[in-house]
Amino acid sequence: MNLIEQLNWRYATKRMNGTKIPQEKIDRILEAIRLAPTSFGLQAFKVIDITDSALREKIFNEACQQPQIKESSNILVFAANKKVTAEMVDNYMNLIAVTREIPVDALSEFSAAFDSIVAGSEEQNLAWTARQAYIAFGVGLVAAAEEEVDATPMEGFDPAALDKILGLGEQNLASVTILALGYRDELADYLASARKVRKSARDLFVKL
Amino acid sequence: MNLIEQLNWRYATKRMNGTKIPQEKIDRILEAIRLAPTSFGLQAFKVIDITDSALREKIFNEACQQPQIKESSNILVFAANKKVTAEMVDNYMNLIAVTREIPVDALSEFSAAFDSIVAGSEEQNLAWTARQAYIAFGVGLVAAAEEEVDATPMEGFDPAALDKILGLGEQNLASVTILALGYRDELADYLASARKVRKSARDLFVKL
Repeated sequence: MNLIEQLNWRYATKRMNGTKIPQEKIDRILEAIRLAPTSFGLQAFKVIDITDSALREKIFNEACQQPQIKESSNILVFAANKKVTAEMVDNYMNLIAVTREIPVDALSEFSAAFDSIVAGSEEQNLAWTARQAYIAFGVGLVAAAEEEVDATPMEGFDPAALDKILGLGEQNLASVTILALGYRDELADYLASARKVRKSARDLFVKL
Repeated sequence: MNLIEQLNWRYATKRMNGTKIPQEKIDRILEAIRLAPTSFGLQAFKVIDITDSALREKIFNEACQQPQIKESSNILVFAANKKVTAEMVDNYMNLIAVTREIPVDALSEFSAAFDSIVAGSEEQNLAWTARQAYIAFGVGLVAAAEEEVDATPMEGFDPAALDKILGLGEQNLASVTILALGYRDELADYLASARKVRKSARDLFVKL
């Protein structure tokens, strides 16, 4: 399938059948997420890949009572950094220097571009890091479709409850969205055979 | 190329050579953006596809002095709805009803799920619609790579100036990000041969 076919094949799967996804498929989906671009390349988020049943039961009971939480194979919680810190920027400069085999001092101008972000509030920073996580989330959705793995983008959860269960707050993280991965239960899911609804190109695009 | 290869091939192109992209490639990139999933399927954004040289010159001078604005073939401005209105929800319900050939009354429960969003502030709404636009932006980045078209995700512009040039504010829209599309100028662009920098899987992922 090419990308257009993959995007037509996928849909927001409401019911899944519990089948486990082969690890090599999960690895390729995660690799695509890892390679996704982000502003300045900072990747100010983490992705928590959850397969543990007891933990998912707890998430279902306390943060998100949607069946995919239990019927999926993996849930990926995208958690963005609440604050962009000077330490995160330093670590990133070191990563560039090591990867490209250049002295870290050569990056002082690039590093200074982060000063105004680091000086920003937690609210401003999270608004920005969340958007970056959503780029990776979009890439992850495509990666799942390429693997013929069903995926449900899920925003309908209690982020404070989920952050508490996963201990994210203390790690400078806040959950922003979930990608449930698994296989559709075509009989139970009325959406499996429903026509995809999208705005027309005329409504969505303006050409100038 | 598969998706992983496409993501390794692409990079944030800093200099482009001005070559025009064939229209069928642009059409497929836009179609992928149109098919991208969004929360509730609302697609509360527009994408402005700009090829006009005089308009791009004006954007370069007043909103974004980066060379890709002039050296690219197309720039796609992603503009999210500032306010989610009852009219937008009604239009969406009508679109579902027509597409799936069901009475619009059958959607009253789904429609009511938007009530709290419509009651939200412009600031809350834009925070949410911007994230949805970023999913489509991520899908658009992948679509460009599949077409072997270079793409630069650009946040470094003056959104107020750009909104004014494009008259977005009066249309309940705010520019949130730009995707410049074109072809890399390998000689002028020092990044064309630079190694890609990404966090290790160990740093980015947590398995539970």
